[in-house]
Amino acid sequence: MSQTMATQDERQPPVVGDRHVDPHFYPEGIAFLDGQYLPMSQAKISVLDWGFLHSNATYDTVHVWNGRFFRLDLHLDRFFGGLEKLRMKIPFDRDGVTEILHNCVALSGHRAAYVEMLCTRGASPTFSRDPRQAVNRFMAFAVPFGSVANAEQLQRGLHVAISDKVRIPPASIDPAIKNYHWLDLVRGLYDAYDRGAETALILDFNGNVAEGPGFNVFCVKDGKLSTPSIGVLPGITRRTVFDLCAETGLAATATDVSIAALREAVEVFITSTAGGIMPVTVIDGAPVADGKVGPITSRLKALYWQKHDDPAWSSQVNYP
Amino acid sequence: MSQTMATQDERQPPVVGDRHVDPHFYPEGIAFLDGQYLPMSQAKISVLDWGFLHSNATYDTVHVWNGRFFRLDLHLDRFFGGLEKLRMKIPFDRDGVTEILHNCVALSGHRAAYVEMLCTRGASPTFSRDPRQAVNRFMAFAVPFGSVANAEQLQRGLHVAISDKVRIPPASIDPAIKNYHWLDLVRGLYDAYDRGAETALILDFNGNVAEGPGFNVFCVKDGKLSTPSIGVLPGITRRTVFDLCAETGLAATATDVSIAALREAVEVFITSTAGGIMPVTVIDGAPVADGKVGPITSRLKALYWQKHDDPAWSSQVNYP
Repeated sequence: MSQTMATQDERQPPVVGDRHVDPHFYPEGIAFLDGQYLPMSQAKISVLDWGFLHSNATYDTVHVWNGRFFRLDLHLDRFFGGLEKLRMKIPFDRDGVTEILHNCVALSGHRAAYVEMLCTRGASPTFSRDPRQAVNRFMAFAVPFGSVANAEQLQRGLHVAISDKVRIPPASIDPAIKNYHWLDLVRGLYDAYDRGAETALILDFNGNVAEGPGFNVFCVKDGKLSTPSIGVLPGITRRTVFDLCAETGLAATATDVSIAALREAVEVFITSTAGGIMPVTVIDGAPVADGKVGPITSRLKALYWQKHDDPAWSSQVNYP
Repeated sequence: MSQTMATQDERQPPVVGDRHVDPHFYPEGIAFLDGQYLPMSQAKISVLDWGFLHSNATYDTVHVWNGRFFRLDLHLDRFFGGLEKLRMKIPFDRDGVTEILHNCVALSGHRAAYVEMLCTRGASPTFSRDPRQAVNRFMAFAVPFGSVANAEQLQRGLHVAISDKVRIPPASIDPAIKNYHWLDLVRGLYDAYDRGAETALILDFNGNVAEGPGFNVFCVKDGKLSTPSIGVLPGITRRTVFDLCAETGLAATATDVSIAALREAVEVFITSTAGGIMPVTVIDGAPVADGKVGPITSRLKALYWQKHDDPAWSSQVNYP
């Protein structure tokens, strides 16, 4: 049993402050919260919000590149789909959310931004434990664009390790609801670090490759692309790869991808809103083919970035 | 593609506030955060903290009853075990955390409290995506005691439905790391509400009963108790039931509990720090045995609350 401390009786009780003095740093950016636009240092949620306490939340992240949103409509589709599945309601329709996202980016001044819209379950005004009584809370923010791979890694390819951690299966959490349940991915990441790699892939429940922390994975063999089909986030960048393949006549399939298939691939890349199409050149310490970034990866990556100026794929931020 | 709004060009850009005006209510209580003791309205984390964005956090909750912590040492064991598994570091040892918890309760004045200690991964001061570079953040708070079952439900027994949602399996997330990954439980809860029940049980990956939102489950048949063994939180109240059974000569086993076994039980109860030992008298609309709270449940419940005054099981809060 815990003992009271000997010193406790002699000490004055600590003072209760009236306002949190926050010693942490925040990136430049603008958040929308409770009807206000605020600097990122003010973008906070209560520890009692079930978005935190139960990770009872959904979100989506879209990026802005050269002052243009990329495929914003697809991100909005997924976000509103997640809200519906989680039975959350927000006081904004699609146009309202779009306007808030534009405002966050415009007020931030960022030309390259990582823009997140999110909704937490919130909390009940009476502190009931019944989530139906909670007031759902919508937030959004725009911060500087970030990438899974840094400049060097984009150039020479990422070094990845395959962890034996298993991605949370769809029977537990529908991956189409974009969610913050990441401890499996985080522990996989530490496995990868332990083995000298830079990021991780984790497995699906059948022992096939699933995805990594914040990204999908593709491999290329015999000129054909494949990517895991089950238990993975239906990523927008993943979908964009399918769209680019269709445009350029490359075959791409969502299917089971075994660890062996990944190791035997001649090219491997990952996809994420945070970085786009990023080459992988080392898996578990062994080079992918000759260890150089492959031609299909390079071609798709170039096409991907070209689309960022195309009005059919992107839309100008409403800067003032 | 998203369209810019017609009205956008005509409008002034919104103003950026310098401080969040928070319209929400918070319960009475005291939090510890960044070295300060604060009212619950100030207990907030950044949306950029990976404790929120990746549910990259661990926690524990202990309760205070009649001014005494109940089995605080076991909760501290589990919390520090979770920190180690997640490779998080906090600037407090066991005595330091104990002192903070005492202070939160003492400053709150609560004689019956729900007391949480938690650590988030935090964020990197340079906004790196590498969790090893993040500064982990310890927090604690004390709010009024809450229960899964309300007074009426404690009296007549809870009405529970069994959802087909599957609890996140241990291959994905080690349940011994107490975590906020709850969307499976939350969706199970909505399944239960849809069927007129008050709370839910969800399944393990083999189709056996696992646990519910915030609680373990026990059933009684032929005078013997059983509770699911795999893929469930090793609850302190669950453990307390085993300890009470040992004291009173009742047989209790952790084993597979099928849906059929649960339905055929003569008594069913759930266990949680939030409420203790709570009877279940209806499962999927059908009464458990005669639908009345059973004698073993009642006996264990009475014993459980008796132990709250016993110095071997509880410790006095250091109120000023």
